[in-house]
Amino acid sequence: MAIEGVLETCLYADDLEAAERFYAGVLELPVVARVADRHVFFRCGGAMLLVFDPARTASAPGEVGGTPVPAHGAHGAGHVCFRLAADALRGWRERLERAGVAIEAEITWPRGGSSLYVRDPAGNSVEFAPATIWAPQG
Amino acid sequence: MAIEGVLETCLYADDLEAAERFYAGVLELPVVARVADRHVFFRCGGAMLLVFDPARTASAPGEVGGTPVPAHGAHGAGHVCFRLAADALRGWRERLERAGVAIEAEITWPRGGSSLYVRDPAGNSVEFAPATIWAPQG
Repeated sequence: MAIEGVLETCLYADDLEAAERFYAGVLELPVVARVADRHVFFRCGGAMLLVFDPARTASAPGEVGGTPVPAHGAHGAGHVCFRLAADALRGWRERLERAGVAIEAEITWPRGGSSLYVRDPAGNSVEFAPATIWAPQG
Repeated sequence: MAIEGVLETCLYADDLEAAERFYAGVLELPVVARVADRHVFFRCGGAMLLVFDPARTASAPGEVGGTPVPAHGAHGAGHVCFRLAADALRGWRERLERAGVAIEAEITWPRGGSSLYVRDPAGNSVEFAPATIWAPQG
């Protein structure tokens, strides 16, 4: 009966083509669905990253089989953190820099592990980290 | 080297106490960290749901060990979908209604499975669904 995990994580972007170049092109997340100027959806492990243009979705809900889908749409920088294997962080730093993506910060956490932070083209804060940064403390 | 999944999903809320009553009290997600008027963090399966007050985080970054944490903070309704076992949806509908949380929509998806939609106290769109709604189509 308990919630098992997060199935969909959302970000918002005015330029969905730029978002796709970043999340599919640089981060290599597979595109699952795309509606021009409305949304682009990516598979990310067992879950989904959904990127919407809030100009389209905040006021005009979608529709599935005649049922309106509840509206949402935010403005301003959101945040997501992607889980990496701990030994993949250095390779990702190099890959991001090769792609011209500036590393905004690198932080070492008290629970163990480090995070890399960059910005997506919409200005959302995108972090890369191993699961150890949230390991339960005993 | 590939991204393994989403480790942190974020929402924003002006009233973090109301957010905690909803996510911890009604949804029973364990609270992992809390800074009054700034953020409250919940464990959700192997990942984290982070709720921030954008009035505090959009302009004033946090700090870890002397390193500024990149700022973010969005306004307007965000969205998250929580993964449930397929047979848990009916029980969740009853639990939410008992807690006084209105069901905004229930949608049956073409890939299989149904979603329930409610709003959190900040107006974010919160969905409950089984993983089948995003099952790869062959």
